[in-house]
Amino acid sequence: MAYEKLQNTEISERLKSLDGWTLAPDGLLIEKPFRFDNFRSAFAFMTECALMAEKLDHHPDWTNVYSSVTVRLSTHSAGGLTELDFKLAAAMDKAAKKAGHRSRD
Amino acid sequence: MAYEKLQNTEISERLKSLDGWTLAPDGLLIEKPFRFDNFRSAFAFMTECALMAEKLDHHPDWTNVYSSVTVRLSTHSAGGLTELDFKLAAAMDKAAKKAGHRSRD
Amino acid sequence: MAYEKLQNTEISERLKSLDGWTLAPDGLLIEKPFRFDNFRSAFAFMTECALMAEKLDHHPDWTNVYSSVTVRLSTHSAGGLTELDFKLAAAMDKAAKKAGHRSRD
Amino acid sequence: MAYEKLQNTEISERLKSLDGWTLAPDGLLIEKPFRFDNFRSAFAFMTECALMAEKLDHHPDWTNVYSSVTVRLSTHSAGGLTELDFKLAAAMDKAAKKAGHRSRD
Repeated sequence: MAYEKLQNTEISERLKSLDGWTLAPDGLLIEKPFRFDNFRSAFAFMTECALMAEKLDHHPDWTNVYSSVTVRLSTHSAGGLTELDFKLAAAMDKAAKKAGHRSRD
Repeated sequence: MAYEKLQNTEISERLKSLDGWTLAPDGLLIEKPFRFDNFRSAFAFMTECALMAEKLDHHPDWTNVYSSVTVRLSTHSAGGLTELDFKLAAAMDKAAKKAGHRSRD
Repeated sequence: MAYEKLQNTEISERLKSLDGWTLAPDGLLIEKPFRFDNFRSAFAFMTECALMAEKLDHHPDWTNVYSSVTVRLSTHSAGGLTELDFKLAAAMDKAAKKAGHRSRD
Repeated sequence: MAYEKLQNTEISERLKSLDGWTLAPDGLLIEKPFRFDNFRSAFAFMTECALMAEKLDHHPDWTNVYSSVTVRLSTHSAGGLTELDFKLAAAMDKAAKKAGHRSRD
């Protein structure tokens, strides 16, 4: 199943339904910083996401520093953002909630 | 730091402060079945526990079947249950809560 | 894709191409004990297998005690062993080799 | 146990005993790109390293993109590189070897 690159208006719409994700200036990827209580919670979150990524066959570009995980999503084969990125983003948000991600209130 | 084998009365006391753990008939180990929504949540829970176990240098004997994880704890070097087992049990309960363990209501 | 239960002769043949797996007396599952150098290697092996299992949507029944992992495979929906079990078994053998599984020589 | 910041000559010496790690221009961290066959091997490597990191209570700053993992090590509390970074670097090299890291020959 090939995913098509989304138009700017479609991207804006999808971003509204997510929490804390921002679009890169070039419009080619979305990014979100996640923060947990400690390294263990951060890595348990990454493990759950790794399992989702492998199942979707769509993988994040992510950086972990102790209790923080910064995720960048993009669909390289489509040259930009597709439905798949927003699917994985929503699943990661759900997993983060369980792992105790603390959003900035 | 060597942990000493706990007496039966000490074990009963500690069990009261935990939820869902049962003592084996021979009194040498405690066991608890954990249930999650799916395999991913179960394995994310196991990863968080693996990190705690490695830090404590005290490891569980555990069985995973899809969304369930059955944990058995005992301190082999002490020939029974020690403070260490109850420490790990409490930490696992906390991790399970986050991962969405569903206790039987 | 539905996998069909294999016949006894098909099972015997497939077992020959694997190393260290044994058929349960009832013929409904295959089992293998893996041994590693320490807990970390054992759990890294389990993580790699968890990712394969999630991708195949076929999960093992497994028990981990420190550096050992005992795996049991069966296809519940087919009421016995299918091609899927032998596919996962071969992939696990490959992953174990990397993680330093020591077979009894 | 507090680790002291290493002198430049000590850092150069320790770097010689490692393979593929480079010192940042400011001398405050060492970095290495690891490459594996696929995402699963990369993440299994990360899991083994996560367990080592938690045990050492010293964690990497790392980025994963599919089959590659770029690791940066530094001891923040010491304001630079310490023995601990080289201990973790050596352990990661060992784990990477098992996970099938391919160095550029």
